[in-house]
Amino acid sequence: MSDRTPVQNAELALLLEVTGTPKPGNVDRERDFADLRFEHFMAGAVGARPGLALASEGEPVGHALERAVAGMADQSAGNTQFGALLLLAPLVAAASEGDLTPAGADEVARRTTVADAADFYRAFEHVDVAVADPPAGMEPLDVRRGSEAIPTLEERGLTLFDVMEQSVDADGVAAEWAGGFRRTFDAADALLADDGPVPDRASRVFVELLAEEMDSFVLTRNGPEAATEVQRRARAVLDGEEGAAALAEELVDRDINPGTTADIVAGALFVALERGLVV
Amino acid sequence: MSDRTPVQNAELALLLEVTGTPKPGNVDRERDFADLRFEHFMAGAVGARPGLALASEGEPVGHALERAVAGMADQSAGNTQFGALLLLAPLVAAASEGDLTPAGADEVARRTTVADAADFYRAFEHVDVAVADPPAGMEPLDVRRGSEAIPTLEERGLTLFDVMEQSVDADGVAAEWAGGFRRTFDAADALLADDGPVPDRASRVFVELLAEEMDSFVLTRNGPEAATEVQRRARAVLDGEEGAAALAEELVDRDINPGTTADIVAGALFVALERGLVV
Repeated sequence: MSDRTPVQNAELALLLEVTGTPKPGNVDRERDFADLRFEHFMAGAVGARPGLALASEGEPVGHALERAVAGMADQSAGNTQFGALLLLAPLVAAASEGDLTPAGADEVARRTTVADAADFYRAFEHVDVAVADPPAGMEPLDVRRGSEAIPTLEERGLTLFDVMEQSVDADGVAAEWAGGFRRTFDAADALLADDGPVPDRASRVFVELLAEEMDSFVLTRNGPEAATEVQRRARAVLDGEEGAAALAEELVDRDINPGTTADIVAGALFVALERGLVV
Repeated sequence: MSDRTPVQNAELALLLEVTGTPKPGNVDRERDFADLRFEHFMAGAVGARPGLALASEGEPVGHALERAVAGMADQSAGNTQFGALLLLAPLVAAASEGDLTPAGADEVARRTTVADAADFYRAFEHVDVAVADPPAGMEPLDVRRGSEAIPTLEERGLTLFDVMEQSVDADGVAAEWAGGFRRTFDAADALLADDGPVPDRASRVFVELLAEEMDSFVLTRNGPEAATEVQRRARAVLDGEEGAAALAEELVDRDINPGTTADIVAGALFVALERGLVV
């Protein structure tokens, strides 16, 4: 068993996630977008570390997340790992409390406060994140408002968990928060049950997750038709009817980036590393 | 200017070094050895961090190095970045003292003690490192003896700087220690003067360093003929007579690995990041 701390494993999870290839549509060891390249993810992971350390030291999850995002954004390409950090913050907190289980992570999520929610909104001031329009009645709480949304948040008494619960339909990471991190832990089991180099396992579990559910980041940026197509073609890869590498090339060319699925893989890598996955 | 600390920049330097491609003969973003792969360098960088943090906190360089090597070795593939850490430890110390210059780094190197040398020997117990046979009269101080060499070291009153000075002919990293880190700082200047993505700059400066001097790791592992050939062919790449990527494939196939040159690139990336190189 490695001597790495939860914070080290979280950082390594971010690095291994972007290394896994092919991860159709995402930056990976073999593919870059024009202005969002592999090295920006390295700098993002290194920069996020102090924030993740706060989560492991018992600081409120919202504050830890806000600091992690600020550090992640300290590179020239904008958002690299916002969603992954949103998953990792509660998972690192749960691990550091000695209960990295769906129940332990769920407890961390459910005990978040209005102050955590406010810090979550502050985190959006560090970086532009593509998000869906808010559901009806939630317009004043559009995350793109950043700190300006905080008075409404406080007025309504919404915790970070509440905010996540209201976004489950639009955001796959929010769905993890609200649903006991089910897909993250299942994917961790898949990583541990697989064999071969860890980045290869990350690539395989990525395609499985992509085939299982529509990616909410693709849904937001490219629309339902693209999201349905990506899911269908990931299934075709699993069925051996299409090559993962060719699909990866095509999706990068078409600027279709299943980022939510990558976020879940990063969370799953963290859980698997904590449970003994050997690099 | 980035808000990254010297420790974060040192870790990022290790990650950017292995990302730069092509770096003929080394693991890079596009190439692995069979049992030494890209992900082992990621885990090595993450694991080395606490040791590098000690160097930034004013702990003796030898102790910081020993801890960094122990953490680096906490992955399944053995040695990934020993030489790079041997360069980074004094550079991080100098940066944290606010004098990351050849003179500042030289001062850190020259004030090392016998205790630093003892910790350097202890570091070899964490991992197998390919090293040259010691020079005449130095057999009892063969680093491969690890801690067993410490009594002789103490008897002779050799500091870590002394040990490095006695190894300048056999080891390019030792030559940096003994010579004011000249090539490291020159390569940092080259990185800053270049343009384009940082990993591309790292690849270019790697080939320049390789053409400039024989790589001591190749000399040790593959002999003088191979080392001369690698230098000559790196010059051919610079002269446009040979392709860097083809040379990279060939050297990996022939198990010729210019690791010392990679170590200097890692040190240079650190210096350049500290001086404002933007990722």
